[in-house]
Amino acid sequence: MEEAKGVVKHVLVAKFKEETLPAQIDELIKGYANLVNLIEPMKSFHWGKDVSIENLHQGFTHVFESAFESTEGIAEYIDHPAHVEFANLFLPVLEKFVVIDYKPTTVSF
Amino acid sequence: MEEAKGVVKHVLVAKFKEETLPAQIDELIKGYANLVNLIEPMKSFHWGKDVSIENLHQGFTHVFESAFESTEGIAEYIDHPAHVEFANLFLPVLEKFVVIDYKPTTVSF
Repeated sequence: MEEAKGVVKHVLVAKFKEETLPAQIDELIKGYANLVNLIEPMKSFHWGKDVSIENLHQGFTHVFESAFESTEGIAEYIDHPAHVEFANLFLPVLEKFVVIDYKPTTVSF
Repeated sequence: MEEAKGVVKHVLVAKFKEETLPAQIDELIKGYANLVNLIEPMKSFHWGKDVSIENLHQGFTHVFESAFESTEGIAEYIDHPAHVEFANLFLPVLEKFVVIDYKPTTVSF
């Protein structure tokens, strides 16, 4: 099994509170994406809404994935004032969430 | 906001049962990865263990990500005998899991 050198993915799986307006969610997603422009170690960002058909999503509705060059880069991101400011807007509108970081590893046969 | 044309990511966030042996987990991961060779619409697979430091992983320990060309491809995968056989081995050793599919979407400014 081989790790992609250095890359660490930061994955947030979330469910927004019922009362959160779609326009508010759109604004928050733009704010999340904009962190790439503000925080150097954050290298990329994408997101999407649940489109699964297995009904194993446990109520989660959105995935947000960003990529970093190292776990140290994620630590720098977490402490960055732009992230702290964003998290203070974002987390209160989530009903539940999971944040998990991992080094993408492939399997050779 | 722009969706990557067609690509759908299938993400499984999991916690193995405490009693699951590391060698057993390794075998299951190889079995999961091998589905790429058996199920045509499954285009890629990678995985990783939680390395997060924020302690927001809610007990989840592993991420598995595979990519498909369409949601129809995921439906075909779900029903494929090789997937059914694998899921019957894999799911019983999980204490909890979330499966969520999404079309990776970027944000333009």
